[in-house]
Amino acid sequence: MLLMREAYYGTTRFDDFAQRVGITEAVAATRLKELVAAGLLVREPYRDPGQRTRYEYRLTGMGRDLAPATFALMQWGDRYLSAPLGPPVDVRHAGCDAHVRVELRCADGHDVPLGEISARFAPQQALGPVEPG
Amino acid sequence: MLLMREAYYGTTRFDDFAQRVGITEAVAATRLKELVAAGLLVREPYRDPGQRTRYEYRLTGMGRDLAPATFALMQWGDRYLSAPLGPPVDVRHAGCDAHVRVELRCADGHDVPLGEISARFAPQQALGPVEPG
Repeated sequence: MLLMREAYYGTTRFDDFAQRVGITEAVAATRLKELVAAGLLVREPYRDPGQRTRYEYRLTGMGRDLAPATFALMQWGDRYLSAPLGPPVDVRHAGCDAHVRVELRCADGHDVPLGEISARFAPQQALGPVEPG
Repeated sequence: MLLMREAYYGTTRFDDFAQRVGITEAVAATRLKELVAAGLLVREPYRDPGQRTRYEYRLTGMGRDLAPATFALMQWGDRYLSAPLGPPVDVRHAGCDAHVRVELRCADGHDVPLGEISARFAPQQALGPVEPG
């Protein structure tokens, strides 16, 4: 999760991932490989002038769409697990400098408190193969 | 996570948890005990007329605040892991029937795309005990 968080902050280069998360290069390589295998990141070669080819890791759509879950867990951890030192990272909106929060909202733009959630369960799903079209 | 989801939908009684999640009573008892120990639920006695005392499980503030993370993971799973049958649960706003989403927003009410996130790291945190006041 810490590597995905770094990716959301814009980190792409292998060296930066390892250094910013504070893990060894061997651990970073293993974890990044797992995230690529899971479809959350893609590995692409790049080359700075005069340097050998290196690799960077970019978010896929699937990885990008996991951001609300990652930030929601961070938000919860900041509130309940970070005492007494306070949250390690202050996440703000670059446009207006206001704090970023993860919120439940409906498609019509209302904030949705827990008491106003309505859950409908899909009909019992078939366990066998699905008939085509 | 499925038990917490049920709690967010308003389930409180032991029998309802076990039945709705589709697990045995023994497994439900173990998992609910873990959630109580973690501080996410509290266990309280209740008694219907003419019945013996039973227990219900209510969300704590800490449990309630984990809802955005739970729904964000569900939202991601619905999109990437639920094919070909589609999402098992349709979550809507009871007030207006619009779909409920988890979104990144700032305190000023703007939607925050990933490219507009600004992260500031707290000063290197002390590893030793913190001085009072």
